[in-house]
Order: sequence, then structure tokens, then C-alpha cells
Amino acid sequence: MIPLDLDAARKVLAAQPFSLLVGARVMVFEPGRAVLMLDIRDDLKQQNGFLHGGVLAYAADNAITFAAGTKLGPEVLTSGVTISYMRPASGAKLEAEATVTYAGRRQAVCRCDLIAISEDGARTLCAVAQGTVLAVG
Amino acid sequence: MIPLDLDAARKVLAAQPFSLLVGARVMVFEPGRAVLMLDIRDDLKQQNGFLHGGVLAYAADNAITFAAGTKLGPEVLTSGVTISYMRPASGAKLEAEATVTYAGRRQAVCRCDLIAISEDGARTLCAVAQGTVLAVG
Amino acid sequence: MIPLDLDAARKVLAAQPFSLLVGARVMVFEPGRAVLMLDIRDDLKQQNGFLHGGVLAYAADNAITFAAGTKLGPEVLTSGVTISYMRPASGAKLEAEATVTYAGRRQAVCRCDLIAISEDGARTLCAVAQGTVLAVG
Amino acid sequence: MIPLDLDAARKVLAAQPFSLLVGARVMVFEPGRAVLMLDIRDDLKQQNGFLHGGVLAYAADNAITFAAGTKLGPEVLTSGVTISYMRPASGAKLEAEATVTYAGRRQAVCRCDLIAISEDGARTLCAVAQGTVLAVG
Repeated sequence: MIPLDLDAARKVLAAQPFSLLVGARVMVFEPGRAVLMLDIRDDLKQQNGFLHGGVLAYAADNAITFAAGTKLGPEVLTSGVTISYMRPASGAKLEAEATVTYAGRRQAVCRCDLIAISEDGARTLCAVAQGTVLAVG
Repeated sequence: MIPLDLDAARKVLAAQPFSLLVGARVMVFEPGRAVLMLDIRDDLKQQNGFLHGGVLAYAADNAITFAAGTKLGPEVLTSGVTISYMRPASGAKLEAEATVTYAGRRQAVCRCDLIAISEDGARTLCAVAQGTVLAVG
Repeated sequence: MIPLDLDAARKVLAAQPFSLLVGARVMVFEPGRAVLMLDIRDDLKQQNGFLHGGVLAYAADNAITFAAGTKLGPEVLTSGVTISYMRPASGAKLEAEATVTYAGRRQAVCRCDLIAISEDGARTLCAVAQGTVLAVG
Repeated sequence: MIPLDLDAARKVLAAQPFSLLVGARVMVFEPGRAVLMLDIRDDLKQQNGFLHGGVLAYAADNAITFAAGTKLGPEVLTSGVTISYMRPASGAKLEAEATVTYAGRRQAVCRCDLIAISEDGARTLCAVAQGTVLAVG
């Protein structure tokens, strides 16, 4: 297992064209925890002006994969993710904070909070997710 | 409940800026079933050249919501989605086919197949999903 | 990988004290598919006279594990299961039918239908589940 | 909505024959949180001597439903549950602690920790779960 640091994690994200398309950034990458952030741009919304659920699902999926990577190393494969939507997400930014609840040799399990942040910094928990990530090779 | 048809479903999708961003189209919209399609463009990929898992999650989420809408009407709220990744998705197109396994007055449950289609039309099941959608109002 | 047959699968189930407690039987065990059955006894119910959701969850979990075992061999570890409840389950018997949607070297993904069967043989789909199972060793 | 207290919650559990069969008790029932406990009896195990995954799934399902009930009132319907298994559960007791992450008028979302407790009181997180519960009527 090659330990990764924040710079290495940012290079991985920068190598994902879809993450560039949605404008995701790695804010935190430390043992057992990763935080991604993106701006709630108009082109990421659904028909009622809220952030599209698919963007929340992307952010949960990717934050969970990165959090698992802090424990399993860079070669990982996301096995599955469950997301439960709670409130419509609006405001300035979306933060996806994933924490590792278990990491073994073969797999890691993570939980993720999806938090909308308004212009004035108010934080609203909009969805929660849970996922399993496998170590590869 | 206002019955929707394919044209109305396409108008809903066209009103979702994020669906336009990823280039999704509604191919089928009939009682109990909806099919979305998108091109596997380079800007939708992850760092290894495969379609990003977040795009698969978006497609599952949206196809499940549309399939539920064929039974619950246009005012729906996706409660939760689980996606299990099986194989990396590559090729020309991604198809998300969602079918309703149950629809009551309050909620619908759907399953979704995520299928990558190669240039020559070969189909590969890459992920499966399951989700619950609530009727609103 | 040691191929298992129906007799071997029945011996595995018979070695699970909890499966004996709830009275589960293996009905089908063939490549890519396993069916478990149990009687909807009074002591398996919840407060309204329906089969307890926990029994449905047990049946889904175990049927998925057995179905995966038809492809991965006997040494497996269930990674996670999602169950969506649709209708209350009542009647004479519960059938849990799991099918493998993907099996690789490391993991298998399965779907499961939970079907209540009345005294006169009418079948009602009460819940659907999806799960991932890992090969061990 | 009729507020429930610990005694009322214990009466609901005592009215569930399956909860009596597995020996579950309500330990905590307060706004936003419920804790169930059961003894890891031999007849609740699988073939390798660990607590059967189905018992963990039952405990998660029921603790999530009770936690939601602290916010939604007694008339609730569990919509779906996802459980991720992490470590085999053994020892003296299993604790299922569910907390409400969101409760609205129509639904609640809960997370649950499944913790095995050894004879000497050591606690091991064995599985995590997430679920959605609907308010009825």
C-alpha cells in the first residue's frame, strides 16, 4: 500500500474528466476521511432549481472512494453505494464528507454526509450515503 | 395523477440542466418502464478511461425516477438509490433501463440495469441499481 | 472452487442454527440461482400479524449468499444487502429467489425477489433486494 | 402524532413475536435515537459460530424503525434498509443503535451501528446500516 497525500489525491481527481466537468475539488484527504467540494452551478441543477440528485450521487460515490483510498491505497474499486435523499440541495456549495467506518485488507466501508452550504455559510445536511470499496491487486 | 407520455418526459429531462450537461435522452417512457441513454463522451470518464461511476449513478437515479413517474405521475421525489458496480463501462453509449417492481399510492420501487453498448452494438451489463420513489402531494 | 450441489447446500443451511430456528429450506441451488423457502409461522410475525421485516431481510441475505455461492464456491462473505419493502407479507410460505447478475473472480452481485405464497398458491412479490458477496481466500 | 415513551416502545416490541423469538429488548427510546439489544445465543448463529447476518439485518431493520418512530409517531412503515457487513459478530450481546439523521412530515432517514459486546464489555462495530421509514396515515 502506497500512502497517498492531499497533493496525490488532487492529481487523481484532476485526472478524472467527469470530476473536472462538475468542478469537484479535494478539500481534505487524511487517514480515514476525505472531503470533496463543488460549486452548485446552474448547469448542475434539475428542473426545480435544486442541485440534481445525480450530482449528489456522484459526490457521495467519489468521496467514499477517496476516503477508502486513504486506508486501502490508490488501487481501489467501488463495489456499491447507497444514497438516501433528505432535503433538496441549494445554495453556494456542496460538501461531501466521507469517513471510513471499517478498513480491512480486502475492503473498506464508508459513510458520507452531503451538505449544502449557503452563501452565508449555513450548512444543511441534504443526503446521507454508505458504500463499500474493494482493494485491487 | 396526470398521465405523462414520451414527449412530456422529454420536456422534463430537457428542463434539467445537469441532464443536458451529460447529454442524456429519454428513449422509452411507457407504463412501468423508462430507458435513458447517453453517449460515453471523454468528459464523462474517470482516470482509467472508463465511464465515471458517478455518471452511472446519475443515470440509475434518473431512470428510476422517470420509471416511477410513469406510475406515480409527474410529482415525485426520489427517496433513495442503491447501485452495485460490476464491470467498468466503456464503449459508445450507456443505457439505463428502469422497471417498476411495485407502485402503490404512496411510493414505487424500481430496478435498473446499466448497460454499456459498444460501437458494434454489443451490450454489457455494468451495474444494477434499486431505488424507491415517493409520490408528492 | 469446489462446485456445490443441492445436497451440499442443504448441509450448509442445516449447519446454521438461526436458519433452523426460522425453518428455512433450500429449494433450488443451481448455477446462478438459489431459492429458499420458509413457513410464515406465527412466531415469525410482527405486531400486526404480518411476517416481520427482519425475516424478509434474513431470507434475502441468505438467498443472496447461497446464489453467489453457486458461482464463487462455498467460501464467501456477504458484503452488503439492500432490501426495499413493498407490501406486507402474509399467507402460508415465503420464497426468497436470488439470481446472480454478475460473478467475477472476486465478487458476485445478486438480486432477490421475496414472494409470499398464500394457502391456495397465489404469489405476491412483497420485497426486492440486491446484494454483493465476496469470494474468500 | 402520539409521542411514545420507553414503556410504550417496549410494549410494541413485546407484541412482535419474532422479536420475542430472537430475544430483543429496547434499551433506549428517546427523540431521535433507539437502541435494541439481544443476547448472542447459539441458536442465532451461522455455521462458523458467529451471529447470523440475518440477525444483524433484523436488528438494524427494527432499531431503524423504532428510531424513526421517536420522530414520526407509532404508525410507520419501513421503506428500505441497507446493511454493510464489516466484521463477524461474536461475544455476549449485540447492540443496535439507530439515530435519526432526518425527519420530515412524510419520512425519516436513520443510520444504525451494529456493535458486538464481549463478556468483558469490549465493543466491536460489526456492521453499519442506513434506512428510510415512512409515516403512515
